[in-house]
Amino acid sequence: MTKLDAVLGAIDANADASRARLADLLRIPSISTDPAYTKECQRAADWLVDQLHGLGYAASKRQTPGHPIVVGHAKAAGEGAPHVLFYGHYDVQPADPLDLWKTPPFEPRVQQGKDSAEIVARGASDDKGQLMTFLEACRAYEANGGLPCDVTFLFEGEEETGSPSLPGFLAEHRQELSAPALALVCDTSMWNARTPAITVMLRGLAQEEVVLTAASHDLHSGMFGGPVVNPIHVLAKIIADLHDAQGKVTLPGFYDGVPEIPADIAAQWRGLDFDETAYLRDIGLTQVGGEAGRGVMEQIWARPTCDVNGVYGGYAGKGTKTVLPAKAGAKLSFRLVGTQDPVKILDGFRDFVRARLPADVKAEFSRHGASGALSLPFGSAELGAARKALGEEWGVEAALTGCGGSIPIVGAFKQELGMDALMIGFALDDDRIHSPNEKYSLTSFHKGARSWARVLAALAG
Amino acid sequence: MTKLDAVLGAIDANADASRARLADLLRIPSISTDPAYTKECQRAADWLVDQLHGLGYAASKRQTPGHPIVVGHAKAAGEGAPHVLFYGHYDVQPADPLDLWKTPPFEPRVQQGKDSAEIVARGASDDKGQLMTFLEACRAYEANGGLPCDVTFLFEGEEETGSPSLPGFLAEHRQELSAPALALVCDTSMWNARTPAITVMLRGLAQEEVVLTAASHDLHSGMFGGPVVNPIHVLAKIIADLHDAQGKVTLPGFYDGVPEIPADIAAQWRGLDFDETAYLRDIGLTQVGGEAGRGVMEQIWARPTCDVNGVYGGYAGKGTKTVLPAKAGAKLSFRLVGTQDPVKILDGFRDFVRARLPADVKAEFSRHGASGALSLPFGSAELGAARKALGEEWGVEAALTGCGGSIPIVGAFKQELGMDALMIGFALDDDRIHSPNEKYSLTSFHKGARSWARVLAALAG
Repeated sequence: MTKLDAVLGAIDANADASRARLADLLRIPSISTDPAYTKECQRAADWLVDQLHGLGYAASKRQTPGHPIVVGHAKAAGEGAPHVLFYGHYDVQPADPLDLWKTPPFEPRVQQGKDSAEIVARGASDDKGQLMTFLEACRAYEANGGLPCDVTFLFEGEEETGSPSLPGFLAEHRQELSAPALALVCDTSMWNARTPAITVMLRGLAQEEVVLTAASHDLHSGMFGGPVVNPIHVLAKIIADLHDAQGKVTLPGFYDGVPEIPADIAAQWRGLDFDETAYLRDIGLTQVGGEAGRGVMEQIWARPTCDVNGVYGGYAGKGTKTVLPAKAGAKLSFRLVGTQDPVKILDGFRDFVRARLPADVKAEFSRHGASGALSLPFGSAELGAARKALGEEWGVEAALTGCGGSIPIVGAFKQELGMDALMIGFALDDDRIHSPNEKYSLTSFHKGARSWARVLAALAG
Repeated sequence: MTKLDAVLGAIDANADASRARLADLLRIPSISTDPAYTKECQRAADWLVDQLHGLGYAASKRQTPGHPIVVGHAKAAGEGAPHVLFYGHYDVQPADPLDLWKTPPFEPRVQQGKDSAEIVARGASDDKGQLMTFLEACRAYEANGGLPCDVTFLFEGEEETGSPSLPGFLAEHRQELSAPALALVCDTSMWNARTPAITVMLRGLAQEEVVLTAASHDLHSGMFGGPVVNPIHVLAKIIADLHDAQGKVTLPGFYDGVPEIPADIAAQWRGLDFDETAYLRDIGLTQVGGEAGRGVMEQIWARPTCDVNGVYGGYAGKGTKTVLPAKAGAKLSFRLVGTQDPVKILDGFRDFVRARLPADVKAEFSRHGASGALSLPFGSAELGAARKALGEEWGVEAALTGCGGSIPIVGAFKQELGMDALMIGFALDDDRIHSPNEKYSLTSFHKGARSWARVLAALAG
C-alpha cells in the first residue's frame, strides 16, 4: 500500500467525524456584510485556528480593518517539497429571505439528494464545505506520515463583500506569504456531479451603489405629486438606459477589452454536454435572456454583465403609502472578462448617472470592490499534474472551464504576490449558493478531500 | 352676548383641556395599513365613542371587514334645524422612517413654530387634530344651550388605505346616514396660515401594486448573471416608459377626461399669492418638475399624475449581495382629475405592463382603491354661508381651492348617499403629513374649533 492509498483510506474511515466538524463550522453565522455578525466572524476564525493547532500547525488569527484573516504554516514530511498556499473563506452571505428556508440556515441537516446525501446550511457549499475538503486531506496526511508539500493556509472572512482587506494584508505580509509557488483555491464548481473541473477563466467583479436624493424629506404624493421630481422615476430611467434592446450594456467603452472566445476553447466547450434547457428549467425559466444570439455557457464564462442586485425607494411594506419619496437607490454589479478595466467601468457608470440627473436630483456613490477578470496559463506543469490527479479520483478527465463568479483573492495573489492560482472546487450548479436552502453534496465533500490528497501528492511529484 | 359669542368664549376658555384631549388621541398608534396595529385602531375608535358619549350623544363602534367605523347622532337644541354629517378619520400613516423623528411619533409634544405653537406627532394634522376641531366646537355648544344643527358623526379608520370598507358601509346604512343634507369634511388645508380655504376640487386616487417574478429563486449573479433575465431591469424599463421626455404619462387614453382649467378658476388662482420658489425651497428643491410648461398650482390641483410610491427587489440591506433577484415590485398611485375613469386607467396600466414582459417574466397585480376626482357646485347656499363664516373668524375671505390629495369618502358620500361635501380644513402645507415630525399648528386647532362653531351657526341661518 502506498502512502497515498493509506491517506485515502484514512479519509474514507473518518468520513463521519469529518462531517461532524463541517457541521460545527456551519453552525457559526459568519455573515460578513452585516455588522451585527462581527463577533460570529471572529468565532469562525478562532474555530479555524483551533483546527490548525489540532493538526499541529502554527496558526493565528490576524486582525484587519474588517474581519480577521487566519494564517497557518505546515511543513512537509521531507525536505525539498514544493510549497503551496491554500485559500478558502469562512464568511457567508446573508441568509435572507429567511422564510424560504425549510430549516434554519445555521442549523445544518443532512438530506438525501438526487445523487448523494447533502448537507443543508448557509455556507455549506460557499465556502465552508469546500474549505474543509482540504483540511480533511491534511488531517489524513498527518495521520499517515505527514504532508507531501509545505502548506501555507490563508482563510479570509470578507470574500462575500469583495475582500476589501486582503490586498493590503498580502502586501503587508509579503515576506511571510510569498514563499509558495502556487495558490490552491477551493471556491469553484465541478463540471457536473461526476466530472471534476479546473477553472481557468474567472470573471472580474466591480460593484457600485448609487443613491439619488431629491426633496429634503418624503412628501405626500397628493399634496406634492406632479411638480415634484420623483427619484424612483429618475433611477428607473437610468437603469433602463443601461441596456439596449439587444441586451448589450450601453456604458460608453464598456466592451473595450472583451475578447471573442479563442477557437480551441470554443471547441472544447462545444464538446461538453451542456444542456441549456435543463439549466434554465432548474431555475424555473425557458428562454435564454441577456445578449441576443449568445448562449448560456458563453455568457456566463466569457461575456460581461451589468446587473442590478437590489433596488429600493419609498414604501416597501405591506399595503400602500401615498408617499413621494425623497430618495431611491440601487446596488449594481458588473461581471468583467478579458482585459476590461474595472475602475474605468465604475467611473464610466458614475458619469453615465450624472449625465442623466435632472435639476435638483443629487447622486451619491459608494464603491464595493473592483477586480478584473483572470485566466490561468494553459500549459503549466501544475495544471497538468492536477488535471491528472483529479482524473484518477473521478475516473473522468477534468474539464477546463470558465466561471461566471469572481474570486477577488485570485487577482490579489497575482498582483500582490505574483502567484498563479489553481482553482479546483467541488460545488455543483444546483447548490443554491447565496439562496435559501444552500446545500453541499456529501459526495463532493468526501471525494473532494480525496481529490486534494491526490493533488498534493501529484504536485510533490 | 349672542349664543355664538358664548360658544366662542367657551372654546377660548377651554383651550388647555382641548389640547390635552387631542394629545390623548395622538398617543394611540392607529396605523391602518399595518396589521400589527389592528388593536390600536380599535382603541382609537373606542376613544371616540367615549368622547361622543361624554357629550351626551348616542354613539357606537361598528365593525367592518377592516377597521371599525364610529357613528354618532346629536340633536340640535331646537326643531327644524338643518342636519349635517361630520366626517373625519382616526387612522394614520405608518411613522417610518423612525430614525428621522426628533421625538417618538406617538408621544405628542408642543414646540414653538414660526407663527404659532405646534403639536408634533403622527396624525397631528392628518387627521386627528382636524377631527378634534369639530368635536371641540360641539363641546362648546353643549355647554351653551346645545347645537344649532342636527349632527351625524362618522369617523372611519381606513382613510389612509383608501377607505375600502366605507362605500359598503354607507350603502348598508343608507337609511341611518342619508338624512343629513350635507357632509362636512375636515381633512384639507388652509390657503396659508392666515387665510382659510374651502376645497372645491379634489384629485381622485387609483393605486396598483405590481410584482414581477422571473427565476424560481434568488440566484448568484456570477453563476447566473448574463443569460438569466433580471426582473429589476424589466421593472425599471416599465417605470421609465410610463413618462415621456415632457413629463406626460404615456398610458394610452390616460388624458381622456382631463379638462383644461376654466377661465374664471384660472383667474382666481392667479390672484392668490402663490410663491413657487418658496414652495420648492421648503422641500429642498429649486425647479418645477413634472409636465413641461405647467406650474406648481396647476399641476397639484388640476393635472393627473402617475407616481411610483415604492420600489423593491433584490438586496436592500447594508453592504452588498451579489444576487440576481427572482422578483421585483413597485407600488404606484395615479392622481386623477376631471372625468378620468380610475378603473379604466388601472386596467390600462396592467395592459401596459403585460405588453412589456419578456419571456419567463410574470406579473401579479393588486389593486388598492380607485376613486375619481370630485368638484363642488360653486353656487350652493351652503358654500356661500360657510365662506362668510370663515371670513368672520379669520378676517380674510376664504379661498376656493383645489386639493392634490384624495378623500375617497367624498366620492362615496356623493355616490352612496347623494350628498355633497363641504371640505374645510385647517392643515398647513408645511405640516409634514405622511412625513417624519408631522405637526399641527395650535392656532389651526384653536381657530379651527371657533370656525366650526361659526359655520354651524351660519348653516342654521
